[in-house]
Amino acid sequence: MTDVTMPAIILVEPQMGENIGAAARAMLNFGLTDLRLVAPRDGWPNDRAIAMASRADIVLENTRVFGCTEDAIADLNHVYATTARPRDVIKKISTPRAAAAELRAPANKSAATGILFGKESVGLSREDVALADSIISVPLNPDFSSINLAQAVLLVGYEWFQAADDTPPVQVHNEERPANKAELSHLFDRIERELDARGYFEPILQRKHVILQNMRNMFQRLGLMESDVRAFQGIIKGLTMKVKNKTNDNDQP
Amino acid sequence: MTDVTMPAIILVEPQMGENIGAAARAMLNFGLTDLRLVAPRDGWPNDRAIAMASRADIVLENTRVFGCTEDAIADLNHVYATTARPRDVIKKISTPRAAAAELRAPANKSAATGILFGKESVGLSREDVALADSIISVPLNPDFSSINLAQAVLLVGYEWFQAADDTPPVQVHNEERPANKAELSHLFDRIERELDARGYFEPILQRKHVILQNMRNMFQRLGLMESDVRAFQGIIKGLTMKVKNKTNDNDQP
Repeated sequence: MTDVTMPAIILVEPQMGENIGAAARAMLNFGLTDLRLVAPRDGWPNDRAIAMASRADIVLENTRVFGCTEDAIADLNHVYATTARPRDVIKKISTPRAAAAELRAPANKSAATGILFGKESVGLSREDVALADSIISVPLNPDFSSINLAQAVLLVGYEWFQAADDTPPVQVHNEERPANKAELSHLFDRIERELDARGYFEPILQRKHVILQNMRNMFQRLGLMESDVRAFQGIIKGLTMKVKNKTNDNDQP
Repeated sequence: MTDVTMPAIILVEPQMGENIGAAARAMLNFGLTDLRLVAPRDGWPNDRAIAMASRADIVLENTRVFGCTEDAIADLNHVYATTARPRDVIKKISTPRAAAAELRAPANKSAATGILFGKESVGLSREDVALADSIISVPLNPDFSSINLAQAVLLVGYEWFQAADDTPPVQVHNEERPANKAELSHLFDRIERELDARGYFEPILQRKHVILQNMRNMFQRLGLMESDVRAFQGIIKGLTMKVKNKTNDNDQP
């Protein structure tokens, strides 16, 4: 992707192995591989984490375990604390998106960075938040703002990945080319001719001009591709064929 | 939040109750409450879903179950299909962020929208993708791009929630409304029926299914308004009338 240093994901006192495994998966989904654990409740390695990580076990194999948060972040230059409810601490609070932009900023190119996530039950302690330079807070429905540990990792990783991603936000999957005006005219003239041949406009002759104009406007507006014009030509061909007898139909296999 | 209609989250043939529950939580985290299930494998209601949903069981209580995807989206105007690997379909592909901006756009203010998510094992079928207007594809590490169903719902919900702040206060003047899926299906079924009655597919019977799917994809993609559907119904009516004799034509003034 880029040559920006990836942030370390630091889980402080994680309780459930499943969540560590799910966090590892979420990390690898967005190209993050530096997982650090501070005093995991059930020790390390953890079978449930491995089972849950599935193919992301590569992240778990390189996971480092530390006795305390200070040790886990000792080599880092800038540390974020994720918390849903920033308390009476005077620190910069960023959304995951703003933090991701900051992490990707040229000024941080050679900085070693990390993001702290607290334990499932109570989140980060005041002491852990105090160790961080700034806070990441995920915007959530205020009436239902509890998210799973791995989901918090997922959202932060997603934003980090997005901040570098040069995928165009919208693409039309398409080797096709738009229909040109000649093709559109040809299609439209055919519709008009076929409708005329069938006397379609006879009961509404006065409105024929307006109706045709509206139809032409519609076809212009639809943004047809060249293949769409061909599809419509096929449909017109089919619709203007003679109805087959039922008996003929029954002859078919 | 805003008065924009929230998108329905439609899980097509979800396999594990746990994932339905986790999806409900992810939805409520971002204020989404319209959950629809198409043929859930283990039936409905589902104890595992309820256990996993925790306080988001309010979402499950209002969940509606449908027999097929068509029924689940019948009342919707614009449907997205989430898929990691858009195949040879000509549809617009958006990131969750771009789709969220679109969902929040003033033009969609009164549109009923929904987002399809496929089953855990294989995602959405080609047929389900064909029913959608456009595709949402989550940018992921290409070397590890499998994400859990609930996580996909989480990311899409997150972006929808995030996009709320960017909603411009300006409204687009539009008295028209987009065609809903029932109207489109009705139109499309009529085309298929009329083509069948004329033996259009007989020489190309093996390709009939693919041709119909391509046609359906095309009609989905065109973004027809309700009035466009009426115009097409008129065109079909005209094209399927019997050709009049030349002599009769000459009788006209």
